[in-house]
Amino acid sequence: MQQQLSVITLGIADLVRSRRFYCEGFGWAPVFENEEIVFYQMNGFILGTWLETSLAADMKRPALARPGAFAMAHNVSARDEVAPLIERLLGFGGRLLKAPVEPPHGGYAGYVADPDDHAWEIAWNPAWPISAEGYVTFGL
Amino acid sequence: MQQQLSVITLGIADLVRSRRFYCEGFGWAPVFENEEIVFYQMNGFILGTWLETSLAADMKRPALARPGAFAMAHNVSARDEVAPLIERLLGFGGRLLKAPVEPPHGGYAGYVADPDDHAWEIAWNPAWPISAEGYVTFGL
Repeated sequence: MQQQLSVITLGIADLVRSRRFYCEGFGWAPVFENEEIVFYQMNGFILGTWLETSLAADMKRPALARPGAFAMAHNVSARDEVAPLIERLLGFGGRLLKAPVEPPHGGYAGYVADPDDHAWEIAWNPAWPISAEGYVTFGL
Repeated sequence: MQQQLSVITLGIADLVRSRRFYCEGFGWAPVFENEEIVFYQMNGFILGTWLETSLAADMKRPALARPGAFAMAHNVSARDEVAPLIERLLGFGGRLLKAPVEPPHGGYAGYVADPDDHAWEIAWNPAWPISAEGYVTFGL
C-alpha cells in the first residue's frame, strides 16, 4: 500500500493567532480558509489548522490533551538559517522549547512550540536532501 | 519561505507494537530502524516513530499527553477502499474512533487510533487528487 499521508490537521484554539504564526512567522500562504479552518498546501500533502473543538467532534474524541506526543520538523538548507528562523517564529507567537544544538547524528536543530503548543523542530540536516519542490528523502 | 514539512515524529511506547500497525496494517516498509526509532519514507517527507521518552527528552518537554490535539489522514483512491483498510488496521492494533460516514463536504471517512493513540483518518476525498507518486493537491 502506498506510504502516503494526505493531511495533518492541528487542533487550534484561536484562528487569528495560529494564522499569524504560520503566515507571518513561516511566511506561508493559505490555499483555503474560512472561519474555523485554514489549509496550507505543503510538499505533497495538506496542513490544516482547525478549531480544536471541531476537530475533536469530528474525531469523536472529546478530550484532546497538550502537548501531544509528536513533533513536526521544518528543515532548512543551511546551518545558518536555523537560528534566524527560530527568532522569527518567536516574534510571531512561537515559544522556544530548545535552543539549537548539534545533535549526535549531525546537523543543527532546535524546537519551537506554535501558539497552540504544537512542536516544530527547525533543523539543518545535510544527510536528508530536499528537492526544489520541497520533497525530502531519507539519507544516512 | 518554502511551505515545507520534512518530518513528522510520533511518540510511541512500544516499538514492536507500533511497527506491526504500520508495517502489517498499512503495509508500509521502513527505510531505517534501530532499537528506538523507525523511519518511513512518505510522499515528500519522513514519518518517524520514536520512543516517547527519547522524543520528549529531545524536545525538552518531559510531560507529553495523549491523545494529542492533532490528526493525520491517509486518503485512498476509491470509496470502497475505506472500510476494508479500517478493518485491516483494527486487526493490527488499531482502535476504532469513528466508523466511516459521508461528511457534509463530500467523500467518505472514518478514524482509527494507532496503538499509541495517534489518530488516523482513513478517507476517500475525490476533490483532492493524489499523483502516482502519492503527492496530494488541495481542491474544492
